[in-house]
Amino acid sequence: MSASRPIITLTTDFGHADPYVGVVKGVILGINPNALIVDVTHEISPQNIRQGAFLLENSRRFFPPSAIHVAVVDPGVGSDRRPVLLDTPSGRFVGPDNGIFSFLLDDGSGTGAGRAGRVPTPPGCRAYHLNNPRYWLSPLSATFHGRDLFAPVAAHLSLGTPPASLGEVVDSLIRLPGSTPTRDGNRVHGRTLHVDRFGNLITDLPAGLFHGAVETRVEVGGVTIHGLSASYAEANGLLAIIGSCDTLEIALKNGSAAARLGLSVGDPVTVTISPTPS
Amino acid sequence: MSASRPIITLTTDFGHADPYVGVVKGVILGINPNALIVDVTHEISPQNIRQGAFLLENSRRFFPPSAIHVAVVDPGVGSDRRPVLLDTPSGRFVGPDNGIFSFLLDDGSGTGAGRAGRVPTPPGCRAYHLNNPRYWLSPLSATFHGRDLFAPVAAHLSLGTPPASLGEVVDSLIRLPGSTPTRDGNRVHGRTLHVDRFGNLITDLPAGLFHGAVETRVEVGGVTIHGLSASYAEANGLLAIIGSCDTLEIALKNGSAAARLGLSVGDPVTVTISPTPS
Amino acid sequence: MSASRPIITLTTDFGHADPYVGVVKGVILGINPNALIVDVTHEISPQNIRQGAFLLENSRRFFPPSAIHVAVVDPGVGSDRRPVLLDTPSGRFVGPDNGIFSFLLDDGSGTGAGRAGRVPTPPGCRAYHLNNPRYWLSPLSATFHGRDLFAPVAAHLSLGTPPASLGEVVDSLIRLPGSTPTRDGNRVHGRTLHVDRFGNLITDLPAGLFHGAVETRVEVGGVTIHGLSASYAEANGLLAIIGSCDTLEIALKNGSAAARLGLSVGDPVTVTISPTPS
Repeated sequence: MSASRPIITLTTDFGHADPYVGVVKGVILGINPNALIVDVTHEISPQNIRQGAFLLENSRRFFPPSAIHVAVVDPGVGSDRRPVLLDTPSGRFVGPDNGIFSFLLDDGSGTGAGRAGRVPTPPGCRAYHLNNPRYWLSPLSATFHGRDLFAPVAAHLSLGTPPASLGEVVDSLIRLPGSTPTRDGNRVHGRTLHVDRFGNLITDLPAGLFHGAVETRVEVGGVTIHGLSASYAEANGLLAIIGSCDTLEIALKNGSAAARLGLSVGDPVTVTISPTPS
Repeated sequence: MSASRPIITLTTDFGHADPYVGVVKGVILGINPNALIVDVTHEISPQNIRQGAFLLENSRRFFPPSAIHVAVVDPGVGSDRRPVLLDTPSGRFVGPDNGIFSFLLDDGSGTGAGRAGRVPTPPGCRAYHLNNPRYWLSPLSATFHGRDLFAPVAAHLSLGTPPASLGEVVDSLIRLPGSTPTRDGNRVHGRTLHVDRFGNLITDLPAGLFHGAVETRVEVGGVTIHGLSASYAEANGLLAIIGSCDTLEIALKNGSAAARLGLSVGDPVTVTISPTPS
Repeated sequence: MSASRPIITLTTDFGHADPYVGVVKGVILGINPNALIVDVTHEISPQNIRQGAFLLENSRRFFPPSAIHVAVVDPGVGSDRRPVLLDTPSGRFVGPDNGIFSFLLDDGSGTGAGRAGRVPTPPGCRAYHLNNPRYWLSPLSATFHGRDLFAPVAAHLSLGTPPASLGEVVDSLIRLPGSTPTRDGNRVHGRTLHVDRFGNLITDLPAGLFHGAVETRVEVGGVTIHGLSASYAEANGLLAIIGSCDTLEIALKNGSAAARLGLSVGDPVTVTISPTPS
């Protein structure tokens, strides 16, 4: 049954005011009327590849491995940046080769670090340069590959077209420079990666850091927060908590931590952990 | 056929910028690929339970009684507020026990009044404390029960899992203090409950008040409006009309009544009706 | 298979903050649980019929001809403006007769010009006045025909109800005055029709004008742009390009052309083309 209704997710910077998302869906459904299309978000900041990569990573884990994920944040559309498919055991990913799949190119060490630039396809995965125009809309526009290339390729893929028909195997993809926490004894320096609708500041400091911690101190935006809270409701005022992305999150009970602290994406967060994490 | 494609509606304060809604859908579809998910709104003001309750009430009536409604406005997530299911003849409702289902706890008198606080489950309905972790994602986060608890419970429910498997019957749920019009002879004092995208001020004054009225006078924001209009297009300037929520609505032809009057949610509206309504 | 899951698209000015869109979907699915509903956009500026007509035209082309398109930008709701169905070889269109279907009433000359006001139904198409209340919700509100009339009519249509059952054939529909480029030798004067999320200025100057052009000069907002770019990424700064609506578009690499030039919808754009286009 799930085989007959393949899931195609959409993560884009198209917004909701224009008909771009609707048109992409029309193209997909014209090719595969049985596709089950799910919007992840269309509110990536225009052309913010890093944000798109982060939000894609934090959503794709909650979809079945049969899902096809289309991610289009594509400032290089119409240039020679390559359209690609990354076929992995946990899902298939379609989009421009510009770093949007960075988090899928981790080496599995969980450090979020690793090399930037052109990196090898991870073991167990296969990447394809989508260069077979037979599966595109014709003519191909220079400005809207979401509609003309990525949508029809995803739809054909969902019908069972083998990846090898859609393009040629390539052995590397583009990876953005990582936002990687750095260590200094028992102090770890990270950054905010995202601010959500509630004003929660989501950082790149992984939950694992805090396992076994007896004392935790978070310095952020000029304030110090002692200890981790178990829920938003528990604390008063600002709090530090392991959030739904499984990283440290700074929140404000019944308010916006981002507004209170005057912070946004990319700002530094330092934690001091005792005993020193392993 | 409708049995094989159960409707699950979503009413939340998650917004559209984050992948939270997409992730909830991924969890539901991973459990029941046949679920038909419908967004009611995700733009409830952050943590505004009362607004969520009002908008849920004004949408659920237009769905088939087989629908499952997930409503998540949940400032108490991770605390000891209970996750609940309310099973009614007109639909099944899944969400936190924090007042989000207040309008379903009316006594049927249509007064919108009634008690606040913990009130008994209405006749013909049954409520359950969702305390069986077998139907949740594991581990359960402290910050995102929409994803980890309410989504999987709704999905299992849509597959036919009996409510009694999901948790224990409880005999009362939380109800917010009502916004109840008060009477003073032929004058009725109410409030604005919602401002919609067009700037229409939607009040708590029910259509029934105006049945048989020969003269109607509405005082709102320092102005007086005489009579009810039959359509937005009929009047010039400000008008009073029975709106699509079946209550009195203040509108401005080709403009925003809220902006013109400088009003928002919670502001007073008084109507004088002749002859005195029964 | 596509016959069993008929597509119904929605193009409205309802926004996302209110439950209006969700309610429309509830009504449709209550009548036809197999309908596949696709949002085109709900962010038409309130009551901006012209914008709705333009965005409908630029999306409907990407849906299968079996699709039913519901378009509701309806300031005259509740007045004597007619609810209509326009049945065409490329899709069926349901909405108010107020100009929202203007682009479907072109004479096929592609000039975008033609008469305004009441114009005859195009050859090969048939229009119906939706005046059979049997297919509406009852009672019909005066304020929300999207829910009470257009949604149920579209749902019944998707079930196979013949158009002639829904209302009476009419021989003309309302068309808005066109935004038509004018020629003056090798200079063509057009206007911006839409500003998209990226700040791209989409004009009414059709791609066909530029076929065979050796030299192109675009004057817009006090600046002059020489030549057309092949992609957004190719140029630096402001650029002119044939966009995804197949018309001239003014864009700014990695920025908003609208913000840079201080322009919005309706502003003039002049192109000088050599040799003079035929």
